Amino acid sequence: MPGPIQSIERAAAILRLLARGSGRLGVGEIADSLELAKGTAHGILRTLQGVGFVEQDRDTGKYQLGAALLHLGTSYLDVNELRSRAINWADALAARSGEAVRIGAPLEGRVLVVHHVFRPDDSLQTLDVGTLLPLHATALGKVLLAYDTGLVASLRTGGPEAYTRRTLVTQTAIKRACGKVREAGWASENGEMITGEAGIAAPIRGHGGIVVGAIGVSGAAERICEADGSPIPRLLGHVRDAARAVSRDLGASRW
Amino acid sequence: MPGPIQSIERAAAILRLLARGSGRLGVGEIADSLELAKGTAHGILRTLQGVGFVEQDRDTGKYQLGAALLHLGTSYLDVNELRSRAINWADALAARSGEAVRIGAPLEGRVLVVHHVFRPDDSLQTLDVGTLLPLHATALGKVLLAYDTGLVASLRTGGPEAYTRRTLVTQTAIKRACGKVREAGWASENGEMITGEAGIAAPIRGHGGIVVGAIGVSGAAERICEADGSPIPRLLGHVRDAARAVSRDLGASRW
Repeated sequence: MPGPIQSIERAAAILRLLARGSGRLGVGEIADSLELAKGTAHGILRTLQGVGFVEQDRDTGKYQLGAALLHLGTSYLDVNELRSRAINWADALAARSGEAVRIGAPLEGRVLVVHHVFRPDDSLQTLDVGTLLPLHATALGKVLLAYDTGLVASLRTGGPEAYTRRTLVTQTAIKRACGKVREAGWASENGEMITGEAGIAAPIRGHGGIVVGAIGVSGAAERICEADGSPIPRLLGHVRDAARAVSRDLGASRW
Repeated sequence: MPGPIQSIERAAAILRLLARGSGRLGVGEIADSLELAKGTAHGILRTLQGVGFVEQDRDTGKYQLGAALLHLGTSYLDVNELRSRAINWADALAARSGEAVRIGAPLEGRVLVVHHVFRPDDSLQTLDVGTLLPLHATALGKVLLAYDTGLVASLRTGGPEAYTRRTLVTQTAIKRACGKVREAGWASENGEMITGEAGIAAPIRGHGGIVVGAIGVSGAAERICEADGSPIPRLLGHVRDAARAVSRDLGASRW
């Protein structure tokens, strides 16, 4: 069986590079970052521009992601089974809990937010769909970490980032937290990614009980947690009920 | 200068194919649709799977778009200048008009919705960002058509679709409508895409006055239009003010 096609892999690497940081790069910067000859990078960029995956700024000549990717990205949401099965349960969880609900799936060692229901009030909120969250500093991420040993291994490279004073940053602390998640069947965060923000999440299981994602609520710590920092039992119950309901719809009969 | 790289173009065509219709296709269907040898299609699909751009269903073996595209798509939104300059004006337009606001840019002969502010009430609404709308049946699309002769030419192939009895479907009717848009400086739709839904849109101009997008309100026809079907002057004024404000921010000094 032939191996992967190099030019497509390089094109994907360029797109991923442009999705990071400021989002605008010159051909030289791109070539240097990916250790490509400038002519090679230029040929790939021109092809990507031709199909609408990158755009070139008229004034600076720098490249950025193109509009065609937005349509592909939102089309992905339409076929994502986890999301489509979970939408109604996520709405119900937001209504019952009065908090924002997010559904996450693993992507490239982080949590990809595939669905987000705003907190049911008039507060200004921005849509998190498509955002990548850290595994070790969020309730959604800890759930994914706890049930996937491959993901824990991915943390080893580089060392996890400290977002606040409370972020778990040592392998030992993270592994201990994962053990607790497996024992309890849910995960929480309290000021570990953003000071004053807390969250509760539970695993979504697919066929055969494999954990395919996580669903959870998040918001101001004083609304999510008791005075001692533990999740409010009523909210925890709602999150676990929602996770079980989605899992059943995905065919995880025993959970 | 060397031409575009064929394997990347083919990979893009496969992704575009998967973004259409049901979103799940077997390797044979993909190969047939794009007139590729099955082995060629398979090699591209395996590479796309390796970079997370497609996923294969375990049970059926069919391919669908992958999670990595969602992150690229939403990253595109972060660097899109039209959207970032327009966000505050779009919020203000929604607040003033009390209606849903959308911003569109041309993509592949259609209108790509790059920003969407919900109608400021408690009604259930779904986010249109990433959706492709028809040019000839929407106010946003008519604005783009009116100022881009290349887009009018793109309508010629196939013949525009009739969404309702009111959709403009002949070249003559569409060209006449475009002439009126250029004369008036705004476009409207009234039950031309969805019966009972209406919209008003005005052009957003960039450097040198080039029309780069459109901003508009849409909603129930009885809220958007007078009894005679013409846009309510107050709403039209708000839309035109917002379009001018965004254009100024984009550097279109004279408009």
